[in-house]
Amino acid sequence: MVVVKSKQFIYKNELSWKSEKKGLLASKDKPPLEVACPPEFGGHPGIWSPEDLLVASVNICIMTTFLYYAKNWELKFSSYQSYAEGVAEIVEKKLVFSTIEIRPKILVTSDRDIKEAEKVLRFSERNCLVSNSIKSKIILKPEIRVNS
Amino acid sequence: MVVVKSKQFIYKNELSWKSEKKGLLASKDKPPLEVACPPEFGGHPGIWSPEDLLVASVNICIMTTFLYYAKNWELKFSSYQSYAEGVAEIVEKKLVFSTIEIRPKILVTSDRDIKEAEKVLRFSERNCLVSNSIKSKIILKPEIRVNS
Repeated sequence: MVVVKSKQFIYKNELSWKSEKKGLLASKDKPPLEVACPPEFGGHPGIWSPEDLLVASVNICIMTTFLYYAKNWELKFSSYQSYAEGVAEIVEKKLVFSTIEIRPKILVTSDRDIKEAEKVLRFSERNCLVSNSIKSKIILKPEIRVNS
Repeated sequence: MVVVKSKQFIYKNELSWKSEKKGLLASKDKPPLEVACPPEFGGHPGIWSPEDLLVASVNICIMTTFLYYAKNWELKFSSYQSYAEGVAEIVEKKLVFSTIEIRPKILVTSDRDIKEAEKVLRFSERNCLVSNSIKSKIILKPEIRVNS
């Protein structure tokens, strides 16, 4: 039997605790990022928390997957902005992100592209590496309009 | 019947596409962060990708949870550094993060704190909001030594 193993993609980072509830995140060639425990768990305001970054990673991955498929399928759009909101609460005695709602606002160049953009967006969400890797329910609420 | 709903914690962010495969991530009071699709999927090197941020969020959350419990249990330590490596590959026809390995190096102040630190660390991983919210297998490989 021949076992064909899929290609693997590896993502690495280094984290160093600095003081109080703060640390510095690093990854080769990327600008270092200050991170911290959020205020509601005894941490600090104004600093990216792991909770923020999990929710953001879903938001960004849906966009980057959309950019990939939009290019492949020659979809024209002039703007993509997306608000994300993650809700953490106790479920079965564990604190987890129960839902992550993603609200992309996309401007397309013609009426006939509205449906096409929604199709590409929904396909992108289903094929997003990050949203496929998390347990939270992803709620996608797009608003797609013609750039007037 | 009285239904007691657990407290909810909400995390919000705003993402704007800028050009090519790049965008800007924002969240109230936090420094804006440039993000992008990674090079292996047609994106850009040297910029934080959603894949990076997912893996980082697990690494950071285990540290911030450890900081929380270490303080509560009065565990003394002088250093916490942690390397993380996420592996993305096709599993059941979908590209997902199959494993995320976290390698914390912790320096404690006395021999008797080595076991205690490992206990606090393992408890922190099991109670980490982010690792509880993802499907990937989390592999924790600590190295705990006395600061000499």
